Amino acid sequence: MNYRMISKILGRVMGVEAALMLGPVLTAAIYGESAAAFLLTMLIAAALAVLLSLPRLKYSDLYAREGFVSVALSWLLMSLVGALPFVFSGEITSYVDAFFEIVSGFTTTGASIILNVEELSHAALLWRSLSHWIGGMGVLVFIMAVLPLSEERSMHIMRAEVPGPQVGKLVPRIRHSSAITYLIYIALTVMLIVLLCLGGMPFFDSINHAMATAGTGGFSVKALSIGYYDSAYIDIVTATFMLLFGVNFSIYFLLLMKKFRPALMDSELHLYLGFAIFGTVTIALNIMSEYDGFWHALRYSYFQVSSIMTTTGFATTDFNHWPAYSKAMLILLMFTGASAGSTGGGLKVSRIVILARAAAEELGKMLNPRRTVSVRMSGRSVDSTTIRCTLVFFAIYISITFLSTLAVSLDGFDLETNFSAVAACISNIGPGIGLVGPMGNYEMFSDFSKLLLSFDMLVGRLEIYPMLILFLPSTWRRN
Amino acid sequence: MNYRMISKILGRVMGVEAALMLGPVLTAAIYGESAAAFLLTMLIAAALAVLLSLPRLKYSDLYAREGFVSVALSWLLMSLVGALPFVFSGEITSYVDAFFEIVSGFTTTGASIILNVEELSHAALLWRSLSHWIGGMGVLVFIMAVLPLSEERSMHIMRAEVPGPQVGKLVPRIRHSSAITYLIYIALTVMLIVLLCLGGMPFFDSINHAMATAGTGGFSVKALSIGYYDSAYIDIVTATFMLLFGVNFSIYFLLLMKKFRPALMDSELHLYLGFAIFGTVTIALNIMSEYDGFWHALRYSYFQVSSIMTTTGFATTDFNHWPAYSKAMLILLMFTGASAGSTGGGLKVSRIVILARAAAEELGKMLNPRRTVSVRMSGRSVDSTTIRCTLVFFAIYISITFLSTLAVSLDGFDLETNFSAVAACISNIGPGIGLVGPMGNYEMFSDFSKLLLSFDMLVGRLEIYPMLILFLPSTWRRN
Repeated sequence: MNYRMISKILGRVMGVEAALMLGPVLTAAIYGESAAAFLLTMLIAAALAVLLSLPRLKYSDLYAREGFVSVALSWLLMSLVGALPFVFSGEITSYVDAFFEIVSGFTTTGASIILNVEELSHAALLWRSLSHWIGGMGVLVFIMAVLPLSEERSMHIMRAEVPGPQVGKLVPRIRHSSAITYLIYIALTVMLIVLLCLGGMPFFDSINHAMATAGTGGFSVKALSIGYYDSAYIDIVTATFMLLFGVNFSIYFLLLMKKFRPALMDSELHLYLGFAIFGTVTIALNIMSEYDGFWHALRYSYFQVSSIMTTTGFATTDFNHWPAYSKAMLILLMFTGASAGSTGGGLKVSRIVILARAAAEELGKMLNPRRTVSVRMSGRSVDSTTIRCTLVFFAIYISITFLSTLAVSLDGFDLETNFSAVAACISNIGPGIGLVGPMGNYEMFSDFSKLLLSFDMLVGRLEIYPMLILFLPSTWRRN
Repeated sequence: MNYRMISKILGRVMGVEAALMLGPVLTAAIYGESAAAFLLTMLIAAALAVLLSLPRLKYSDLYAREGFVSVALSWLLMSLVGALPFVFSGEITSYVDAFFEIVSGFTTTGASIILNVEELSHAALLWRSLSHWIGGMGVLVFIMAVLPLSEERSMHIMRAEVPGPQVGKLVPRIRHSSAITYLIYIALTVMLIVLLCLGGMPFFDSINHAMATAGTGGFSVKALSIGYYDSAYIDIVTATFMLLFGVNFSIYFLLLMKKFRPALMDSELHLYLGFAIFGTVTIALNIMSEYDGFWHALRYSYFQVSSIMTTTGFATTDFNHWPAYSKAMLILLMFTGASAGSTGGGLKVSRIVILARAAAEELGKMLNPRRTVSVRMSGRSVDSTTIRCTLVFFAIYISITFLSTLAVSLDGFDLETNFSAVAACISNIGPGIGLVGPMGNYEMFSDFSKLLLSFDMLVGRLEIYPMLILFLPSTWRRN
């Protein structure tokens, strides 16, 4: 294992985190709040950045193993340091709670332990939103856009940090690919800020909600979430942008390149929109009687389906009180999640496509054993390694969900709460059903459960392998 | 498709079903009840047996396709006819309810729509228990023991009816293999009848409970299930025999052959017993405060873990009132299920072994891409087709569970009830949690849900593929 290389990468991540602290520091200055907690954290991150960069590289090899380990450790370290400001300022008294909150931020989950979010300082609110924004697209993807490694080495890191069963590059060079992705990301975020301001949302709120939407995070500056504004315009704009951020960013790149055909023929996009429409319409029909007719119900179901499917987690109403079908549909959408190469979490629609086609092929092979199995997606064939990886991914994902539910059950809450808390954390959504519903929160869980749920959030965001590889003895064995 | 061959096989199944009716007819005679409903059904089954055997075979080919289709259709037809006596006698008024009840019987699920089981006639009770007994080991396995087909043809049918990721033969000839399996099955059943009688259980009850235990079914002749007798001896005997019937029958064969080493070194057996012990002990600790100390709690947890894990579904207490951890553990055990080649349902422990080892291999391969993936079980290597099949199996199993939960939710009951009803049906257990708990039943569901749950029970018992292949258009296409 090239420990010096990993140390260098962690050093860069700390450098970026120190720089990110400028956001809350400036906010504190503007609103006349104390910036001490953030300045202190900035110092610690900067010191770590220097220390971790000290060891000289003996060789610059970086293989798959180092890629996974450096991504996993980067996210852990970033969260360990990112939790500090909350504790320093005293806004969150327990370090475990602060860790949970910032892991929830970086992984764009949006699950919170804060009982009254409106009592937080502006600086703390911005830090939460900023963690969503940077976590959505990935901090290492960001680093590669500005401080690139060699192509092959970058690829190992991309594979570990970017969501989806396969890693696609937009352009031949990863550095350019990362930069283009971030430019599209910034452009869409700015567009949303403008649209929210036009709808009458205050500027500060707009920035925060736009960042939380972009990262498909879900932290809000209001206890009632987006429901606070009670505006059909804001609901529809937010819901639409949540859906947009759940689309594979390579599609936007293709559209910019005027390659409309491949962009619009993408089979993941079709299924993604298909799920959204099916969920929205059937839930609207299911909840109609509780609202003023179908169209009113549609506004709420469109918002909630977008929010859950893209794994954002905003709410405009307490869907905890919706009938059984709607709740079951939302839980199902928690698992399907958004598209690969987007900022959304969950299993990803492309994995569902691969699973479904692999299953159909397998059934065909049962009838005709000499048939060769071949799965195609968007016109290209999916290689057998990707299929096996996807199948194993699904098995581990579900197993971790079930085992975590069992462990969280030790706290003694009801099954609906426990299961949906785990599902909402591993899929990076935030609110679940029951006590962790959109109007509830995660404060009541034991420290053990909070740490386990934090682990689940990281497992979900980094798509399992980087986190599990940390626990594999052979990872740490000498070559 | 060789339709004439399928028709011949269905004819034989009807012949066996007509013969099975002798059980309830005799019971009716002994207890002075009317045997009319069963005699009429016997006539219908016999007539169908003759009709279906009429077409002359043009050729005697039987491929995988015919194997799956004939097994799926056999189980459907057997259930369609087996439901008739309940309707003829008026003991169940709705045909859908009667169908649900007998599918639940044959698939050894034990989910019931009957509100007061103690009002049923002795003949009807025996028919329910008999359906468990024949369904547990498989009606076609029985037919092959007495009316064998050629080796290759039998293999296609065995593969479709016998549970587990791989089909093992005890001896080179399938006919002998089936016969030996049934002999062990009969011997164990008789042993249990004797032991239950010795514990003071009435003879009729002993026969019924022994058949339900042997098939890991779960229908009881008492509303309070085994809890009715309130005897530690009966609890422990039943729990132990449930565990025994959840063991792969090839292990008993190896023991009879005095091959102790391979029998006791089986890795599925180790994990199966490991799960049982872990579940029993942790649940006992979890429920201790509700019972008179650890040992008393152990009696109840041992019984319930055996009952759920082997997918039998008997109860000695209402575990609905147990704390969250115990309920979550039981749901987890619902999915793991019993061993391959046993009468139990669920995913089967051997599939869990394969999934876990495939996942570990996949992680290893991530670190070292040139490594070849090889999964070993009980000393032998598992071929890549079996691994892929197992992974796909898991994905379909979970998908069907989630989609069925969504559909059943339309009835409007709570999530715990819906999810656990589906889990209990697809894993062939019977009682779930909530309204379908051990003291509840399935009567309140809509006809649509009852039919869907019946489908899930068949999907679980026949391990997915035979049922799904019925819906594949290419199955019915000409060669």
